[in-house]
Amino acid sequence: MPAPPSRVPQQERSRATRARLLEATVDCLVEYGWSGTTTTVVAARAGVSRGAQLHHYPTRAALVTAAVVHLAERRAAELRAEAEALPAGPRRFDRVIDMLAAAFTGPLFVAALELWVAARTDPELRAALVPLEARVGREMHRLTVALLDADERRPGVREAVQATLDLLRGLGVANLLTDDSARRTALLNTWKRQLATLLTP
Amino acid sequence: MPAPPSRVPQQERSRATRARLLEATVDCLVEYGWSGTTTTVVAARAGVSRGAQLHHYPTRAALVTAAVVHLAERRAAELRAEAEALPAGPRRFDRVIDMLAAAFTGPLFVAALELWVAARTDPELRAALVPLEARVGREMHRLTVALLDADERRPGVREAVQATLDLLRGLGVANLLTDDSARRTALLNTWKRQLATLLTP
Repeated sequence: MPAPPSRVPQQERSRATRARLLEATVDCLVEYGWSGTTTTVVAARAGVSRGAQLHHYPTRAALVTAAVVHLAERRAAELRAEAEALPAGPRRFDRVIDMLAAAFTGPLFVAALELWVAARTDPELRAALVPLEARVGREMHRLTVALLDADERRPGVREAVQATLDLLRGLGVANLLTDDSARRTALLNTWKRQLATLLTP
Repeated sequence: MPAPPSRVPQQERSRATRARLLEATVDCLVEYGWSGTTTTVVAARAGVSRGAQLHHYPTRAALVTAAVVHLAERRAAELRAEAEALPAGPRRFDRVIDMLAAAFTGPLFVAALELWVAARTDPELRAALVPLEARVGREMHRLTVALLDADERRPGVREAVQATLDLLRGLGVANLLTDDSARRTALLNTWKRQLATLLTP
């Protein structure tokens, strides 16, 4: 028996409303930081009523937690799509590192960093984010291994991938207030050669 | 001719007041984050009157800018003193990296990160911090080169020292919400061997 015809549009509307709220949350974090990202500001930016916003995400912590998941999924999907579009060949490895570096200096990184730093001194936000941090970190690691076609069974490969992600996180922070791209490009050119050596059997 | 005897104690009192205000600023940033670090809260924590606080640091930006300089100098002095206390020998290099890693996960790093992230969306704070960021970065680089006894005239050495500091900054962020020390120790053990190879003629 098919579902009542009125149900599907309602579900779709709900999904679209949630997506608009989560995108608006990320935009607000990038533009105003955590302190300016109140549920009222997000609802206004998303063009969603306060009532609808409270229905979907009753608290600020619930809203930003959902935004982190949404953000991590969007980033992973973007990276996968970009990587698929890369031509095969010797330049592919370097391009994957460039893509990852762009992800760690882009708006999604900035939004996540706002939340991470705020959560340090906000117990409710912290309780919501800590379980996600581990999950998002694992997924980012797995995605990077796949994109670099790395074989983690070989000794040292797991640590080399981890170091790459930690290095990129550090470079992301160094880019917060000023354009650090010239230094970053030079540094990553050296890192690409080292990493390639570490990953190559 | 000696200075009038009343001047010296006054200067000393001023210096002590300023030091108390700057230490209290760092403490407040660590405990409450940027949003909770108001000039009123800092003055109360330092046990300094509002009038004296406003006399020495008329704005919140002036206060935290001075705190960053104070913080960077304190961190550099601590690292130099710790490094001098290290015994010479093959383990010294590893201990220096451990010391640097501790600096990038300690309260001074956390306080600086609070300011860096807040400055992204606060134009007054940003204008005050950007010139300092470059200076503090250069001094940290120079100190690391000295502590590791690295020869930057050799190709690749400058980039290896930079990558170390960026990696440590990334590890500092990874440690914000949860104790990441087990993963960090394993990762740094690998990094120490790589870095030693990169720095050794």
